[in-house]
Amino acid sequence: MTISKSLFPAAAGFAGAMLLATTAIAQQPAAATPLADRYRPAATRLLAAALSDSSAYNRLARLTDTFGHRLSGSASLEAAIDWILAEMKRDGLENVRGERAMVPHWVRGEESATLVSPRPYRLHMLGLGRSVGTAPRGITAAVMVVGSFDEFAKRQAEAKGKIVLFDAPFVSYGETVRYRGAAASTAARAGAVAALIRSVASNSMQNPHTGAMSYDTTIARIPAAALSVEDAMMLHRMSDRGDKTVMTLKMGAQTLPDAPSRNIVAEIVGSGKPDEVVVLGGHIDSWDVGQGAMDDGGGSVAAWEAVRLIEQLGLKPRRTIRVVLWTNEENGSRGGLAYRDTHSAELEKHVMAMESDNGVFQPLGYRIGGSDSAIAIGRDIASLLSSIGATNVVAGGPEADVEPLFERGVPAVSLAVDGTRYFWYHHSEADTMDKLNPREMAQCVALMAVMAYIVADMPGTMGRAPKP
Amino acid sequence: MTISKSLFPAAAGFAGAMLLATTAIAQQPAAATPLADRYRPAATRLLAAALSDSSAYNRLARLTDTFGHRLSGSASLEAAIDWILAEMKRDGLENVRGERAMVPHWVRGEESATLVSPRPYRLHMLGLGRSVGTAPRGITAAVMVVGSFDEFAKRQAEAKGKIVLFDAPFVSYGETVRYRGAAASTAARAGAVAALIRSVASNSMQNPHTGAMSYDTTIARIPAAALSVEDAMMLHRMSDRGDKTVMTLKMGAQTLPDAPSRNIVAEIVGSGKPDEVVVLGGHIDSWDVGQGAMDDGGGSVAAWEAVRLIEQLGLKPRRTIRVVLWTNEENGSRGGLAYRDTHSAELEKHVMAMESDNGVFQPLGYRIGGSDSAIAIGRDIASLLSSIGATNVVAGGPEADVEPLFERGVPAVSLAVDGTRYFWYHHSEADTMDKLNPREMAQCVALMAVMAYIVADMPGTMGRAPKP
Repeated sequence: MTISKSLFPAAAGFAGAMLLATTAIAQQPAAATPLADRYRPAATRLLAAALSDSSAYNRLARLTDTFGHRLSGSASLEAAIDWILAEMKRDGLENVRGERAMVPHWVRGEESATLVSPRPYRLHMLGLGRSVGTAPRGITAAVMVVGSFDEFAKRQAEAKGKIVLFDAPFVSYGETVRYRGAAASTAARAGAVAALIRSVASNSMQNPHTGAMSYDTTIARIPAAALSVEDAMMLHRMSDRGDKTVMTLKMGAQTLPDAPSRNIVAEIVGSGKPDEVVVLGGHIDSWDVGQGAMDDGGGSVAAWEAVRLIEQLGLKPRRTIRVVLWTNEENGSRGGLAYRDTHSAELEKHVMAMESDNGVFQPLGYRIGGSDSAIAIGRDIASLLSSIGATNVVAGGPEADVEPLFERGVPAVSLAVDGTRYFWYHHSEADTMDKLNPREMAQCVALMAVMAYIVADMPGTMGRAPKP
Repeated sequence: MTISKSLFPAAAGFAGAMLLATTAIAQQPAAATPLADRYRPAATRLLAAALSDSSAYNRLARLTDTFGHRLSGSASLEAAIDWILAEMKRDGLENVRGERAMVPHWVRGEESATLVSPRPYRLHMLGLGRSVGTAPRGITAAVMVVGSFDEFAKRQAEAKGKIVLFDAPFVSYGETVRYRGAAASTAARAGAVAALIRSVASNSMQNPHTGAMSYDTTIARIPAAALSVEDAMMLHRMSDRGDKTVMTLKMGAQTLPDAPSRNIVAEIVGSGKPDEVVVLGGHIDSWDVGQGAMDDGGGSVAAWEAVRLIEQLGLKPRRTIRVVLWTNEENGSRGGLAYRDTHSAELEKHVMAMESDNGVFQPLGYRIGGSDSAIAIGRDIASLLSSIGATNVVAGGPEADVEPLFERGVPAVSLAVDGTRYFWYHHSEADTMDKLNPREMAQCVALMAVMAYIVADMPGTMGRAPKP
């Protein structure tokens, strides 16, 4: 997951929704409704099929073990896409294809941050995505440590010629990711030569966390990197004690010309209203560390498996169900935009778009961006998931790839999951298979399958989403 | 902490004691006893002083930030010892000195483990302490993955010429650390060329964990290293799927001639029975990753601060209180042995030896190796700690540095602490200051100060410890 276009409101919405979802008092079971009654048999079959084995987990393990991480522009992303397309055809899905999208091609290169004073020490760092690099000899400069933008604003006269470290504690992703986005230009405006942040993470075992940053186009571009939480705190203590902190930062990062990539698309064509479409998916790209198992291999494979199960059970819906594994969510959102543009003429007939991008952890229910009636329908559907306790429905904004569709009136659904550990692993080497649990992932598959099938088959629709 | 000489019984005792301590139902408050009544005013003063500020935490932060990790034979260990000796003199402690001990001098050198097949990937690894290295070109060989010694025993005919990975899940430290100790010789006996283990850790964010291994002297020495939990599990999955796994292992490890080091010793000389001695301490050496903040800078500084507080409050005990910061606990236990040998003639008059080496986390009480009367006295003393909930006393064996004294009849006391996260950080890059909490550390200082002062001042003694 990244937080892209509408950076701060979406992030705050996300954090708020998660909090609500994880702390909400158990809702009263909804009284059985005609919709729930009608689809109870299908939901029961989908739940049983999803929970009968670990096929989703095993498929994700094969994907991540075989191809590793999948940054936009990389050979591993395109090889993973080729493999998934072939597997989807083998699964018997229809209209399997890659839809072209040109994506940013940022490469990390060799990088290091080494403390020179008060003692030699190789820091745990990761350059931030989109950052420029340094000259090969690196930048050697004194480090100025601040705890917040506010502190920096008061002390910015000290920043000239320095590497500025923003050692801001994690409050929430929406709040703290502002440092990742804006540290470089904030520091550069005051004459700094590079910017560092404390990794945006809610726990740490010396694993730095990368993610996208952005430059103010009116300000000089300076290199930007994240330190591990541990190392940022150590530099802060040294600075508070009055130690002279000097560092050499080397980053080989560069942005190459845009590269071709693809959104993966496959369908179950609707039996009655094939031109009306339910979209569900995740994003197949990842950062270039860890294996992108949680973010967002898990959401991608869960959506794919949900559609495979619907197909396998012979549940032919009236509308078309389309699984989309978006490319380039992490550093450009070009996949989500390309899908919107490629399918622009059909969007009026997109009745729902669902993305899983919070990790396929224990699901609690759904987050829905849409009209009141969309949320009411979501509650009906969630009532069918009481056997796995996933009946919570909260109102909230879309995931990044679905946002361009939501802005065009398509109701947006996300999975609400137990987010306790998401920001421990996010965008770091620790985003690996073992962080996920086969049964929790199977439950997420069930949530996606039940929602997608019912919305694709039910007599009415969720209506259009109000203007955000 | 390592588990040295009597490897398995001590480990099992440790794990058992921790479990008991963390799960025990709160004990009934002991009825006030003459001992508790007599020392309640002193205990109250020591608690108040320890909890009044973060001086212990700040001192440890200065130590670890300034000197970093402190492996036996390293310049940083000896520089840290010099600094502590100077600070102890400044604190007004008596007879401050370094007592010589020759220590093993193992150095890691450059090292890497790189997967060649099924895909190129740099694994997260740490060579195990005491291991031999490889030739500079490294060892390239197929990887044989097993889940246990039992599985290896059944399949050992496959091991010849291979790198054997023991991917054993963490059960308890005592149980699972057997792989770290014995993997190399077990694999070598069957003709393997190197041995790997899954890191001995109860949680992981791609941080491999080192620690001491040992060689069977009748078997060829082959290099041994730990992989991160994540990477070991990935190789296991690949192997289960039938992927051909080939790796290149390079390790520059070597064992140099023994180096001089020192146990740090300082005292408050007893006012009435100066030749009777209460020892308390931690070990000042660490592994060469992370900063050795938890293992065992924390125990070392807690013991030192406990003695400083007793001195500062003018609580002149009748017996001598001696703080000892042992060297080389991690890879040789030479500090503990040297203390025993240097003080051999005095050991009959050592009335207690206490070490903190489980992390200065939230204290629950004490673990005591000694006679029934020692445990009863421990319970009396612990009853004075009810304000911080640290009244649990369990019977259990000594920490490693105290073991040679315990074997000579000296009652051994350890801190029982919340061990939930100890094996997340242990012997890894993640053993850093931020894992500790100033208030919890201050509580550990209080536990050490109260126990040391009362046992040094009380009319009788704990008696001798029975033969282990």
